Amino acid sequence: MYPDPKSVTRVTSLGAGPIGGGWTAHFLARGYDVTAYIHSMAEKDALMAVIDTAWISLTALGLAPGASRARLRVTDNLADAVKDAQFIQESAPERLDIKQALYAELGRLAPRDCVIGSSTSGLMMSDIQALCPSPERTVIAHPFNPPYLLPLVEIVGGKKSDRAAVEWAAEFYKVAGKAPLIMKKEIPGFVATRLQEALWREALHMVANGEATPEDIDVALMNGPAPRMAVQGQCMAFHVACGEGGMATNLDQFGPALKWPWTRLEAPELTQELRDRMVDGCNAIAGDRHFTEMAATRDHEIVAVLKAIRDARS
Amino acid sequence: MYPDPKSVTRVTSLGAGPIGGGWTAHFLARGYDVTAYIHSMAEKDALMAVIDTAWISLTALGLAPGASRARLRVTDNLADAVKDAQFIQESAPERLDIKQALYAELGRLAPRDCVIGSSTSGLMMSDIQALCPSPERTVIAHPFNPPYLLPLVEIVGGKKSDRAAVEWAAEFYKVAGKAPLIMKKEIPGFVATRLQEALWREALHMVANGEATPEDIDVALMNGPAPRMAVQGQCMAFHVACGEGGMATNLDQFGPALKWPWTRLEAPELTQELRDRMVDGCNAIAGDRHFTEMAATRDHEIVAVLKAIRDARS
Repeated sequence: MYPDPKSVTRVTSLGAGPIGGGWTAHFLARGYDVTAYIHSMAEKDALMAVIDTAWISLTALGLAPGASRARLRVTDNLADAVKDAQFIQESAPERLDIKQALYAELGRLAPRDCVIGSSTSGLMMSDIQALCPSPERTVIAHPFNPPYLLPLVEIVGGKKSDRAAVEWAAEFYKVAGKAPLIMKKEIPGFVATRLQEALWREALHMVANGEATPEDIDVALMNGPAPRMAVQGQCMAFHVACGEGGMATNLDQFGPALKWPWTRLEAPELTQELRDRMVDGCNAIAGDRHFTEMAATRDHEIVAVLKAIRDARS
Repeated sequence: MYPDPKSVTRVTSLGAGPIGGGWTAHFLARGYDVTAYIHSMAEKDALMAVIDTAWISLTALGLAPGASRARLRVTDNLADAVKDAQFIQESAPERLDIKQALYAELGRLAPRDCVIGSSTSGLMMSDIQALCPSPERTVIAHPFNPPYLLPLVEIVGGKKSDRAAVEWAAEFYKVAGKAPLIMKKEIPGFVATRLQEALWREALHMVANGEATPEDIDVALMNGPAPRMAVQGQCMAFHVACGEGGMATNLDQFGPALKWPWTRLEAPELTQELRDRMVDGCNAIAGDRHFTEMAATRDHEIVAVLKAIRDARS
C-alpha cells in the first residue's frame, strides 16, 4: 500500500515557523526534493531565515550526497504543494481547529498512499484526524526542538490510523536520518516531553520555594546528569551504576528511596511486575555486554561530550 | 581562618568504593598529594581498580601539571590519614550511624581549619554532624556519578556549619577543576538529584502503565532533550526557544500547559512572583546576549556533542 520508504525522493513540509522550517532544512540536508508550503508568500523570508540558520549546523554534521538548498520549492498553494508528495510533514500552528481544517483538506488533496506526520507536541492525532476523509495514513511525528539537530521523532497513531502507517513512518524517518520512537499509547505529552516536563515542574517548585534559582537549575543539569543522560539515558545509567546487580540491585536495594521526598512527584507502587519490566528491559538493552564494558563505553562517550563542549566554548 | 584554597596541596579521600575511589582519582589528576583512607587494607585492590578505570578518562581529559598516581598514599589508619589534611572528602557508606561515628572521630583528629566535605547523596549534614566536636567546618559536597567525570558538586551546610566553610568549599572545588553549586537550602535530594528523580519517577509511571519500555525511555532521552540539556540546561532551553520574548513568553503563553496532564507531577501555582523569578533569572544568565546569538551557540555546541558521540561510537 505504502511505497518503499527508501524510494521516497519528494517530501512536502507544511509551515514556515521554527519547526516547519527546521524540518524543511533537515529534509534538504538529507538529499530530498522538498516542497515547502507556507500560508502566505509574506512568510517566505522567515522560512528562509530558519533554513539559513539550520544549514550551518546541518553542514557541520555532514550533508547527504546530492543535498542542495536548490532543491527547495516554496509555494502558498496547498493543492500544488501536496499533489505529488511522497511524505508530508505538517507543522501548522498548535490549534486544534486549524489542524482539523487542514487535515480535512490534506485528506482530499494528498495521494492516498502518502503518509502525513504531524509535528504537534500537545494535540492528539485522534482529535486532529477527526475531519480528515482519509485519516488512516495520518500519524503524530513529534520532533524535539531544534528539529534539524535533535534526532528524536515520537510516532503514534490516532484511533483511525493504520498500524502500517505508523510503522512506515518509523522506517521512513530511519532512512531520513532520524531516531524514531514508536509510542505504545497515545498519551498527552508523549514520552520525551513527559520526562522533561516532570523535571521542569520540579524545577519550578524549587524556584517557587527559594530552594534554587534558574541558574542553579541549569548549572546542576549541565554539570550533573545531562551529559550522562545524553550518552546513556536514565534506565541504563542506573543499571550500569549498580554494577553486577544492575537494575535489579537498583530497585531491590534503593526501592525504598522511591518513597523519600526527593521530588514532589510520587512514584508508582514498585510492584513485582514493574520491577521485572525494568529489570528485563535493561537486560534486553545490555544484551551480552558486561557492566564493566558498558561503564567503559559510558566513560569514553562522556569524555567525548565534555571535551566537545569545552572545545566548542574555547 | 581557612587557608587560601589555592594553597591546598594535600587532600585526604575517605572510602574505597566507586565514589571514594573516583574522588581519589580526580584529586590525583588535578595534581594533589592524595591520602586515601580505607577501612581495611583488604579494600586496597578494589580502590586501585576504581582508580585504574578513572585514570583512562582523566588522562583523556588532560592531567594537571605534576599530576601523578605516584602521589597517592593509602592507609587504614584514620588518625594518620587526616592529621595533616588540608581538605577531606568523605565517601563512607550511606548509613547515618556510620557517618555520625566517623564525624565524631574526624572532628577530633583533623586540623580545625580543614574543611570536610561529605559525598552523601541522601543524608542531611545537620544529622551527619550531630556528634562531631567541630561541626562548623563540615559540609555536604555531593558529586554526580561518575565523580571523576561529571563536574557538579552540590554544596550545603548543616545547622552547625559555618557559612565560611561552605564558601571555602565552593572556592576550593573551583580551583580543583569542579563545578560547585552552593545550595540555598538543605533539602532532601539536593538540586540535581531532585530533577533527575522527578524524571525517573515519571519514567517508572510510564513503564508501570505500559506507555513505554525502559528502552523507549532511554531512546527518548538520548535523542531528545538530553543533548540540549547538556549544553543549555532547561531554563535557558525554554528561554532561547521562545525567541525575543524568552522565558516571559514561555510562561505567559504556555503557562496554562502547566495544568495539562503532561506528567504525573503537579506544577506549582504560577504566581506573579514565580514568573518574575524565572524571567529575571533567565535574563540574568543571558546578560546582553541576544537570543539569536544564544541559539547559534546552542546549535554549535549540540552539533559538537552529537558529532562527539557519533565519533566515539564509530
